[in-house]
Amino acid sequence: MSITFIGAGNVAWHLAPALENIGHYVVAVYSRQLTHARQLASILYDARPVSDLNMADNSSDLFILSVPDDAIDEVCSRLVLPEGATLIHTSGGQSLAKLRHLMDVYSDVPVHTGVFYPLQTFTRGRNLLDFEQIPICIEADNKDTETQLVTMGQAVSTIVYLVSSAERRVLHVAAVLACNFSNHLMALANDITSAEDLEFDLLKPLIRETVRKALDADHPADVQTGPARRHDRQVIDAHLTYLSDRPQVAQLYKLLTASIEARY
Amino acid sequence: MSITFIGAGNVAWHLAPALENIGHYVVAVYSRQLTHARQLASILYDARPVSDLNMADNSSDLFILSVPDDAIDEVCSRLVLPEGATLIHTSGGQSLAKLRHLMDVYSDVPVHTGVFYPLQTFTRGRNLLDFEQIPICIEADNKDTETQLVTMGQAVSTIVYLVSSAERRVLHVAAVLACNFSNHLMALANDITSAEDLEFDLLKPLIRETVRKALDADHPADVQTGPARRHDRQVIDAHLTYLSDRPQVAQLYKLLTASIEARY
Repeated sequence: MSITFIGAGNVAWHLAPALENIGHYVVAVYSRQLTHARQLASILYDARPVSDLNMADNSSDLFILSVPDDAIDEVCSRLVLPEGATLIHTSGGQSLAKLRHLMDVYSDVPVHTGVFYPLQTFTRGRNLLDFEQIPICIEADNKDTETQLVTMGQAVSTIVYLVSSAERRVLHVAAVLACNFSNHLMALANDITSAEDLEFDLLKPLIRETVRKALDADHPADVQTGPARRHDRQVIDAHLTYLSDRPQVAQLYKLLTASIEARY
Repeated sequence: MSITFIGAGNVAWHLAPALENIGHYVVAVYSRQLTHARQLASILYDARPVSDLNMADNSSDLFILSVPDDAIDEVCSRLVLPEGATLIHTSGGQSLAKLRHLMDVYSDVPVHTGVFYPLQTFTRGRNLLDFEQIPICIEADNKDTETQLVTMGQAVSTIVYLVSSAERRVLHVAAVLACNFSNHLMALANDITSAEDLEFDLLKPLIRETVRKALDADHPADVQTGPARRHDRQVIDAHLTYLSDRPQVAQLYKLLTASIEARY
């Protein structure tokens, strides 16, 4: 397939080369900032960096919209696609109905829509990820697009699921809890050790093993440890005393402790 | 050195074999439940399982107290050690002064005290951990014990630090945030996916990569992603609506979101 990427950010940076590796051909990369489009094009075979959202003359088999969630509305309002084009987004947080609605409102010609959501966190510039073990969640507004996306998904990954927008939202909520929030807790831990001139590195083996154990277990709850799990008031109170000059962290500590204590 | 373990739980299960591997000799293992002492003794060279805390006749060079934090008081109140014995604990959450105080109160003879805290999470029965990359935090009430513990630490691990009780408490608070709480968030994520018949396995590649990125970065805050980081009210509100029938999780979601939004 010939493919155009609309967006040259974190997802596109990893997905575009992965799709070329399985034999597809990226013909164009759009970015609001042409330098970003150029950077991504430079690691692809023969992609053209573009800064114009009028793509009426672009005959790509697939248009992949991978811009930040909060840019989707604006990009769709300016996007001009050829008749019968297939436009898919790669977001965990946006429903298919939303994209469908935007196209119904803004496109003068009929287009197909779908979702190709790789359940992974991507960083532009970081070593290219191996997609083989990345779950791909697919949804489409018609059977042909669905088949097209499943075929593409199965060529790039061994884990391909048809996932409805409602299910995708559930996965996204779970991912925010397990990933975004855990990352933030690690950031708070780093704040605390750094403020006391202790190396955050000391905690890294513990963090790695904690995650290994949680993901090896039947349920992470089976391997929960720590003062809250033991209902150890003495240690919990000592920790809250220590955190008293960081009231927001102390409040988080209290609420997470209460949530753990409620389970055990 | 000849060593007696008081406690046959998670820490002892991994530490005792590791100390034998570097040439020490575990002579006895105490547990309140003799079967636990027997199980640990069975994986050691020639250790004797015991259920009596009167160790007045035990000439071990080192007594390692590795019982749950909330059992330390009671065990110390019944423990009888020979004169000049060295008793150390392995806990992140207990100060050296606390152990010193318990011995001053309960021991009829003078003993030395110290701390040998491996900054890792241990599970009894799980494959034996390689201690080489596990940070060991050491503290002692006298220079000889300190030297003894540092020597033992350096034989078992490449990362050995003298860490005061106050610093250890900071590390422990940070570990609770980064590890215990992250584990709980993964448990909540599993609850949510399971309730909707979605496989938690789908999230595992994402969780692994999130942690890899967080620990590779200069600071986990540098690689924070997600709706809170983007101040994406639309997605945040959709997630809170979804969580409305789980009020405690919704409250956690709100507070963690506010904490992330406050940083960026």
